[in-house]
Amino acid sequence: MGSRILSARHRAKIMGAEEAASLINHGDTIGMSGFTGSGYPKAVPSALAARIRTKHARGEDFRINVWTGASTGPELNGALAQANAIGFRLPYQSDPDCRKAINTGMVQYLDLHLGNVAAMARAGCLGKLDWAIIEVVKVLQDGRLVPSTSVGNNQLWLDLAQRVILEVNSWHPEALEGLHDIPTYSDNISCVPPIPISRPGHRIGSPYLTCPAEKIAAVVITNTPDRNTPFSKPDKTSQSIAAHIIDFLQHEIHNGRLPAHLLPLQTGVGNIANAVMAGFADAGFERLSAYTEVIQDSMLELILCGIIRQASATAFSLSPDMAGNMPVIARKIRGSVVLRPQDISNHPEVIRRLRCIAINAMIEADIYGNVNSTCVMGSYMQNGIGGSADFARNASLSFFVSPSTINNGTISCIVPMTPHVDHSDHDVQIIVTEQGIADLRGLAPVQRARRIITACAHPDYRPALHDYLERALRYSYGKHIPQLLDEALMWHRRWMTTGTMMPT
Amino acid sequence: MGSRILSARHRAKIMGAEEAASLINHGDTIGMSGFTGSGYPKAVPSALAARIRTKHARGEDFRINVWTGASTGPELNGALAQANAIGFRLPYQSDPDCRKAINTGMVQYLDLHLGNVAAMARAGCLGKLDWAIIEVVKVLQDGRLVPSTSVGNNQLWLDLAQRVILEVNSWHPEALEGLHDIPTYSDNISCVPPIPISRPGHRIGSPYLTCPAEKIAAVVITNTPDRNTPFSKPDKTSQSIAAHIIDFLQHEIHNGRLPAHLLPLQTGVGNIANAVMAGFADAGFERLSAYTEVIQDSMLELILCGIIRQASATAFSLSPDMAGNMPVIARKIRGSVVLRPQDISNHPEVIRRLRCIAINAMIEADIYGNVNSTCVMGSYMQNGIGGSADFARNASLSFFVSPSTINNGTISCIVPMTPHVDHSDHDVQIIVTEQGIADLRGLAPVQRARRIITACAHPDYRPALHDYLERALRYSYGKHIPQLLDEALMWHRRWMTTGTMMPT
Repeated sequence: MGSRILSARHRAKIMGAEEAASLINHGDTIGMSGFTGSGYPKAVPSALAARIRTKHARGEDFRINVWTGASTGPELNGALAQANAIGFRLPYQSDPDCRKAINTGMVQYLDLHLGNVAAMARAGCLGKLDWAIIEVVKVLQDGRLVPSTSVGNNQLWLDLAQRVILEVNSWHPEALEGLHDIPTYSDNISCVPPIPISRPGHRIGSPYLTCPAEKIAAVVITNTPDRNTPFSKPDKTSQSIAAHIIDFLQHEIHNGRLPAHLLPLQTGVGNIANAVMAGFADAGFERLSAYTEVIQDSMLELILCGIIRQASATAFSLSPDMAGNMPVIARKIRGSVVLRPQDISNHPEVIRRLRCIAINAMIEADIYGNVNSTCVMGSYMQNGIGGSADFARNASLSFFVSPSTINNGTISCIVPMTPHVDHSDHDVQIIVTEQGIADLRGLAPVQRARRIITACAHPDYRPALHDYLERALRYSYGKHIPQLLDEALMWHRRWMTTGTMMPT
Repeated sequence: MGSRILSARHRAKIMGAEEAASLINHGDTIGMSGFTGSGYPKAVPSALAARIRTKHARGEDFRINVWTGASTGPELNGALAQANAIGFRLPYQSDPDCRKAINTGMVQYLDLHLGNVAAMARAGCLGKLDWAIIEVVKVLQDGRLVPSTSVGNNQLWLDLAQRVILEVNSWHPEALEGLHDIPTYSDNISCVPPIPISRPGHRIGSPYLTCPAEKIAAVVITNTPDRNTPFSKPDKTSQSIAAHIIDFLQHEIHNGRLPAHLLPLQTGVGNIANAVMAGFADAGFERLSAYTEVIQDSMLELILCGIIRQASATAFSLSPDMAGNMPVIARKIRGSVVLRPQDISNHPEVIRRLRCIAINAMIEADIYGNVNSTCVMGSYMQNGIGGSADFARNASLSFFVSPSTINNGTISCIVPMTPHVDHSDHDVQIIVTEQGIADLRGLAPVQRARRIITACAHPDYRPALHDYLERALRYSYGKHIPQLLDEALMWHRRWMTTGTMMPT
């Protein structure tokens, strides 16, 4: 392990995870590394969860507030949620136990645009940060830190926290060194310069995280894999969605509205996004680029085979096989991949300048094009908004994708009104289901409704949606966005009471 | 008039408004100048409306599609809407006749983020533009054009239109020359540079609009005032809202979270915004700046007395008295005011870099902080989203303001659920009514609800809102954003059927 901690000051702080966890007090706020299942601390959060269980068993109060980059892994979010250890959580999660705690009201959850966290935290409006717990690959002799498989908010937490615990994880290959790009934050608010990124591959900082040695309270050594979960093989629905998007892009190229090598791609996290990227491989595209949040398996394959020439992200999110190959892969992708802080990967300034093509999953859309990305039935938090809005509003072309129905057809993903809106009709350009694609750009609300119902809704639900629209056109208070307020949310209400959205 | 049209090629195209209007055909799409009541063409749209009335009287079909900067004046939007001449309208309007036509379904209206219009139009996704009708102050010898009291999308329409009609309005003082800043648009999408604005006053282009002389089909001479309407004297509600905002800002300065000269201010259009600006004059602020859409009377007063040192906007929106004084004022404000295209005044890149303070009006907010800015009862279009979202998401500090009730207390502006969402809970920081101010930053949904109800709702409606929240906490499907879907929209339904939102 000596070769991973080259600084004597840091070596002097080496201790076990339990000892490090014992430094943390009830009520502390902790900024942790981690974005998707990558680069989160594995040992101290678990040790802390065990410690809190013991405290609770003795009847003592002990809860902490947890800030991260995005979702993390079971050793962090899962373990702490199971221990009922989290009072407040931001800005994103996708853990089953944490989700349950949020939706029973045990955890207060602040769901934020991932690109906005840094500005809000630095402005002081999220409160003070007691601790940063950050996973790194290596500590250099001068104390600079080699980040691991995600950057997220790591430098932000290191800057803002009173004290810092490092986890040095030798499971990650040292070959990751040099892949990251961490700009220096300027405190001068009277003259902030532009962010000088004009291509996805542009580097504007250093490959290392920095932290004053005197802040570091503990260094914990680990050798533990990331939460790398296999992607499911693209199913027929995902393949249809991918095919609709690729057809559309080829049509745009054919009509001179997109260059042959497209524009920098962003895709959300998950199986559909992975399937879409896999579709690009077969479609004959070349010289592509990506300016995105997360690099998943199929995007990494496009990078390795040279179809994607430059890719910028804030994290990897890989299958165990792909992650296990990282010692070899990291060397191959040097020069074509950059991992950045999430306030840069998701920055409106850069996304707009690069004119990205954004592809994000949704829970549901309504017939007017409002999109719900977060709250099932309007009240039950699924994961969070993530970076979808950072990209959807600022990209030059933006897709929201979903199967047309889920739950064996009992839930239609096209509804009269979404009971929660994350992306308003002003921000939604193109909706895609396995049924088809609705290009809403340039359309007024009633025109949008007809197109969404016809192109995207499942045939079983189309008659009821048309019926709603036609009656709303007749009886609505205003006819701009025709609505029947006593019916608009009844599809969701019906599902909760009868188990299907289908009108009888 | 000779002194206003110095180019012989342009003088050769001088004709009457009726003759110019006769060039336009059924089905044409026309990009017109104009932002708020400023700088819109006055003669040709009225003549066109008269022509279309005649056609309609003869049983002929004649409708046009109208694109503008934002709202305009009665000679344009009003006259054309009264003549039932508009088929499709974007991106904003506030005219009573046009509003009526939209809400009876006669006009298809596309309500867009004002900062996004240029990108969408240039990408070709709004369709092709047949005509630009642009008001200017003067035509120089080489054909460059001195813009009038708004810039809006003028250069965009001149670039995209097949043919152009100019209105040269000698009502505007020639002293406006030099106030504007029009950058050149680059077609090179593979390497777009940053927008080099790092202070509100930075100039990055030329003071003139440009248009190839061969595109110009007609030049029409006018001498007609802008639609300048007097502001109502700030009432008690507006003054209370202004006082809450100013108290809050002073508190932030006191706590070191804002500099004494604040950050560049943006305020929406209307009487409340005007009252807030008037409040700044009395509060002892100095060395302020503004990066905003519109300069109204009270902001112009702050500029004239030196409290605001630099102001950037895309239009003036003044009272008749103030506008009448423009020949003198234009000279005084040279060097401190810049009028820019609306894609620059409302650009996320610049707004975020300058860390603006945004103050925008709303129709209503729900208890979780979702804001409806556009659709009364979810279906009836009031005006449009305007630039509120461009600023609200990207500003470093953002306020949404409204009286706590309207319509003699029958409508509460704090409701269980808004039936239309323009700004999702992710985008709303601070809500202000005359009752008080709710700083929502850093709060999870249920915490937000308690704060909004207590601080902002009218006391008459507080018990019913608390009651909804408590029952939703008990019975909601998920407890993250507790909702009762069969009740959530019933406040609006009740108002429509009984004339009051108040539960019995």
